[in-house]
Amino acid sequence: MSILRFTGYLAAILLGTQPAMADEKWWPSPWGADDEAGNTNYMTPAKTLAATALIKQGVVVKLGHDYHAEMPIPVGRVFALRIPGAPTSKPLGSNRVIYNDEFLTAEIGQVGTQMDGFGHMGLTLGDEADRTKMTFYNGVTAQQMMTPRGLIKNGVEKLKPIFTRGILIDLEGGLGHTLAAGYEVTVDDINKTLAWQGMSADDIQPGDALLLHTGWGRLWMVDNQKYASGEPGPGQAAATWLAGKKLVLVGMDNWSIDVMPNKNAPDIAVPAHITLLLKNGILLHENLKLSDLASRQQYQFAYIFTPLPIRGATGSPGSPIAVY
Amino acid sequence: MSILRFTGYLAAILLGTQPAMADEKWWPSPWGADDEAGNTNYMTPAKTLAATALIKQGVVVKLGHDYHAEMPIPVGRVFALRIPGAPTSKPLGSNRVIYNDEFLTAEIGQVGTQMDGFGHMGLTLGDEADRTKMTFYNGVTAQQMMTPRGLIKNGVEKLKPIFTRGILIDLEGGLGHTLAAGYEVTVDDINKTLAWQGMSADDIQPGDALLLHTGWGRLWMVDNQKYASGEPGPGQAAATWLAGKKLVLVGMDNWSIDVMPNKNAPDIAVPAHITLLLKNGILLHENLKLSDLASRQQYQFAYIFTPLPIRGATGSPGSPIAVY
Amino acid sequence: MSILRFTGYLAAILLGTQPAMADEKWWPSPWGADDEAGNTNYMTPAKTLAATALIKQGVVVKLGHDYHAEMPIPVGRVFALRIPGAPTSKPLGSNRVIYNDEFLTAEIGQVGTQMDGFGHMGLTLGDEADRTKMTFYNGVTAQQMMTPRGLIKNGVEKLKPIFTRGILIDLEGGLGHTLAAGYEVTVDDINKTLAWQGMSADDIQPGDALLLHTGWGRLWMVDNQKYASGEPGPGQAAATWLAGKKLVLVGMDNWSIDVMPNKNAPDIAVPAHITLLLKNGILLHENLKLSDLASRQQYQFAYIFTPLPIRGATGSPGSPIAVY
Amino acid sequence: MSILRFTGYLAAILLGTQPAMADEKWWPSPWGADDEAGNTNYMTPAKTLAATALIKQGVVVKLGHDYHAEMPIPVGRVFALRIPGAPTSKPLGSNRVIYNDEFLTAEIGQVGTQMDGFGHMGLTLGDEADRTKMTFYNGVTAQQMMTPRGLIKNGVEKLKPIFTRGILIDLEGGLGHTLAAGYEVTVDDINKTLAWQGMSADDIQPGDALLLHTGWGRLWMVDNQKYASGEPGPGQAAATWLAGKKLVLVGMDNWSIDVMPNKNAPDIAVPAHITLLLKNGILLHENLKLSDLASRQQYQFAYIFTPLPIRGATGSPGSPIAVY
Repeated sequence: MSILRFTGYLAAILLGTQPAMADEKWWPSPWGADDEAGNTNYMTPAKTLAATALIKQGVVVKLGHDYHAEMPIPVGRVFALRIPGAPTSKPLGSNRVIYNDEFLTAEIGQVGTQMDGFGHMGLTLGDEADRTKMTFYNGVTAQQMMTPRGLIKNGVEKLKPIFTRGILIDLEGGLGHTLAAGYEVTVDDINKTLAWQGMSADDIQPGDALLLHTGWGRLWMVDNQKYASGEPGPGQAAATWLAGKKLVLVGMDNWSIDVMPNKNAPDIAVPAHITLLLKNGILLHENLKLSDLASRQQYQFAYIFTPLPIRGATGSPGSPIAVY
Repeated sequence: MSILRFTGYLAAILLGTQPAMADEKWWPSPWGADDEAGNTNYMTPAKTLAATALIKQGVVVKLGHDYHAEMPIPVGRVFALRIPGAPTSKPLGSNRVIYNDEFLTAEIGQVGTQMDGFGHMGLTLGDEADRTKMTFYNGVTAQQMMTPRGLIKNGVEKLKPIFTRGILIDLEGGLGHTLAAGYEVTVDDINKTLAWQGMSADDIQPGDALLLHTGWGRLWMVDNQKYASGEPGPGQAAATWLAGKKLVLVGMDNWSIDVMPNKNAPDIAVPAHITLLLKNGILLHENLKLSDLASRQQYQFAYIFTPLPIRGATGSPGSPIAVY
Repeated sequence: MSILRFTGYLAAILLGTQPAMADEKWWPSPWGADDEAGNTNYMTPAKTLAATALIKQGVVVKLGHDYHAEMPIPVGRVFALRIPGAPTSKPLGSNRVIYNDEFLTAEIGQVGTQMDGFGHMGLTLGDEADRTKMTFYNGVTAQQMMTPRGLIKNGVEKLKPIFTRGILIDLEGGLGHTLAAGYEVTVDDINKTLAWQGMSADDIQPGDALLLHTGWGRLWMVDNQKYASGEPGPGQAAATWLAGKKLVLVGMDNWSIDVMPNKNAPDIAVPAHITLLLKNGILLHENLKLSDLASRQQYQFAYIFTPLPIRGATGSPGSPIAVY
Repeated sequence: MSILRFTGYLAAILLGTQPAMADEKWWPSPWGADDEAGNTNYMTPAKTLAATALIKQGVVVKLGHDYHAEMPIPVGRVFALRIPGAPTSKPLGSNRVIYNDEFLTAEIGQVGTQMDGFGHMGLTLGDEADRTKMTFYNGVTAQQMMTPRGLIKNGVEKLKPIFTRGILIDLEGGLGHTLAAGYEVTVDDINKTLAWQGMSADDIQPGDALLLHTGWGRLWMVDNQKYASGEPGPGQAAATWLAGKKLVLVGMDNWSIDVMPNKNAPDIAVPAHITLLLKNGILLHENLKLSDLASRQQYQFAYIFTPLPIRGATGSPGSPIAVY
């Protein structure tokens, strides 16, 4: 997607007109009209081997938080775990075995450490009530994609397991301070930090998973209210730059990737989501725990994550690991 | 755990007396009195590197099934996914962004492809109503472990990410037939199959993940009723042998590891669970999809799985991967 | 609503054209453009007193079934109750109090004995994807009515408590046989049965609750599969006749009021629902237990039911009572 | 139950010993050893007729609040409603019918306006881990009563529909001020208020439903935080007096009947619950909306409520009505 095209699109919206879709038909996936896997298509044996080559010490770092009812949860969503019975079973057999279940109700793919899939976010191109004009990844409409009991297109179960090169960009370290809510990460910030890490933008290759460490994530379970009140993140410019890198995934230690509030474009909702996820097939991994990795100054590693294949889900919970 | 000890324990139960716990205090974890991670403690950098060394072609195989309401679900449990609103949000911003959530209610760690954790199964050593006598991994009692809103001991979030050597034992291939429900896998079957694969029991090392392919798993979504009606699996003898191998995990293409029905010990409930999970800290991975791996004759690989760290859960959903 | 109008509407649909809504704007509520209470507006003090006058013996009959996971549940819906902890609390205070909760997940207003509210059923007048053309009671569109977390128009909490004259029409008794699945109840059947009961259609007054006993309900928990396989019920003609009576509610001992299968109009979905609920503001009470009342030959009574006021729900569970 | 007996019981607990249960075996129900209906057994035809005689004007007043996620909810419980799909169905039939469901997850009998049933609250008479010593209404133990998927004794479905005389005691009016949190309602307060209403304690008859209006309920949805922070209510003395009246139900415009905090007996958990519900079979109706009734100065009326018969539930949601 070119900047011009995006600008034209925004202009069209701001002018109250619709983007001309007749000719170009959305932002088509380079992987084909039926593609639902996005940039997980970069997950090839060669990529796996390149990531494997980064495993030298055998250290595994868990990048996800635990899930529980006290974690920061977006207003209106729930996370409720109950143990029925305690124990759930009566004694069974002459050896008197007992067992427990866990009964969970949650917006399971959209709370805690979670990865946004391609059914999560779209744009309404026409009347807000018309599902044939609500468009998601690869031009799929809400009408084509949605049922009340799960998505029939773009569900997370269509994604390939992610086993790839991971790159941590420690913005907090590189810039010398924890990034604040509303801080818009720029391309310059990224390049500067890469240089500080002894790397350059050329080290980023198609299919890599890129993690941005801002330090904001240290508020998790320390000051949940502040954590949820805003966040640093890339704005439109950095998102466009990241999209050009053809990443499989962008992950952050914040709750929604996008800078919040977005002072430079207060009217535009989540531009990084739209650019990365919707138009460029790049998954978003939110609420990651990146400080351990940053403090170890580990900037390259194997990034391993298999989305929980709940059929028709919009996102996936789960803890990715960095292995180096 | 010695066979003698187990036999004595069962004898005590069958005779209506209690096992003498005063002296030996349950089957203590070799990892210490506070251990809640069991054999995931074998997950060391050396182990990670040994597993990494098996990655030669860069092929990733997903070993889990998708989750949905039509999969085989144990009677009494539920799996219900709903997409609120469709889309869940109204158009946001001048770019009119929309998004969807998924709202799930399920016995999330005990349906579909799932790994039993240490809070799942225990033994009632005293009166069935007394929680101080219901005992789980490492001697933790229900009274110490359970709350209505999650376990405070032995929850799956205490487990370490699993990145280890995986070994597939293709019993169906080695024995020349799909194993039937009620077929008790013997130590001899395992040894015979290992030989058929060009391997031996000595190839199995502490911390390995061992997968038993029976062929039973091909019934998944083909004949769910038959699938759920029974299963082949190890009985007491094979479970004891497997326990001696100090595995991190035993996985199968059936729904409960244990042979069902268990003709040789009809009164004993799930002896393999008790031996492996409860007494020896070995996790159980159920409802795996192993036929792809078997048909590729890939018997050694990296086995990678990070339990979904839901605080206080008894098990974990998720798709492990084999990488070779 | 006249038959002519309905016929014209259907003809329009069958011919692939849209009904002309420009002039007549749906079937407007006689209670005003903002009405969301439908015929519960007939619940006046005078009506309450008329119903009270029927209470002569002081007998209360429960007309609803108990709710549990084994009851007939429409495919795809769930009813799952769990008792967390058992007990849910630890001992509290020096008197060591304990308590239990119940944790329920269910399509709560649409399982078991339940009353359909005005947000439950509508007609798609335009493109199936366009919410501005999906129209519900009193011309409210899906776009105006729906949010992912509850209806903001036509929710059951807008209904007035029902305390009214109830009339049982014991079709099984009057016609001399249990009505079978697919049996279309006719106006003649109703009149004949009323005569058999010593009553006439003139006894039915605006605001009355009318219960049709077919005997089909005796299959509940006796042969759930047969119960759910079909049902007797009014077709279009009887529904139109019932609508003309300006009832507050029609209740039956079946699961969906409408005759299933509907041999005389196999292409038309649930015509009685549409006529009664959607166009005429008459609530529908399903899965009632009417045989007790019928066997007592109690044909007139106070019918008392307060919809469970879950804000934005489409229906209500709960057990109505007949008092005589 | 005599005061002496209760005092002896408390003394026993405070002294660290157990009450002597051998001889008297709990507080047995006067309705028999198998009774699970408690004082709903007072619901007889005569009682129905006595209540009916109070219906003179035909006015119906709803005494319950609407249910929604923003209402005051006890910490740790949830109320989550979702509308799947919106609409839930695709267009059906040539008339293109659509419908919606509501999917609810909630501690359904213990949130919002709710009635505590006999499985809700008990006392632990022995070791806190021993279910055979956790005792509920009519001496039923947790071991006898509980399963992970519902109670098999003392569930709310065992209660009879309540159609009885209701009496409102407008304490706020009688005492001349809104009662504050921690205000302990005394027997003298009740008698004084009854006199102010032109009534006396002799007007209260067995099987009556007694409602105490404190004014505290006006905080509902006005200042939820304050509402939940405490409440006025009867202490031990008033509860004992109320128990002596053999009521079917005590209802209040607070969230837990009992005075909170209970300055006079800070160590004793919910004494009014124990006295009324557990020992005397009197149901508790919480979070009622009583100010309308109080402002109309309607002190006698028919009180009508049918518990939602969810099998094995500990409480019931639902809106009772006062009819006068």
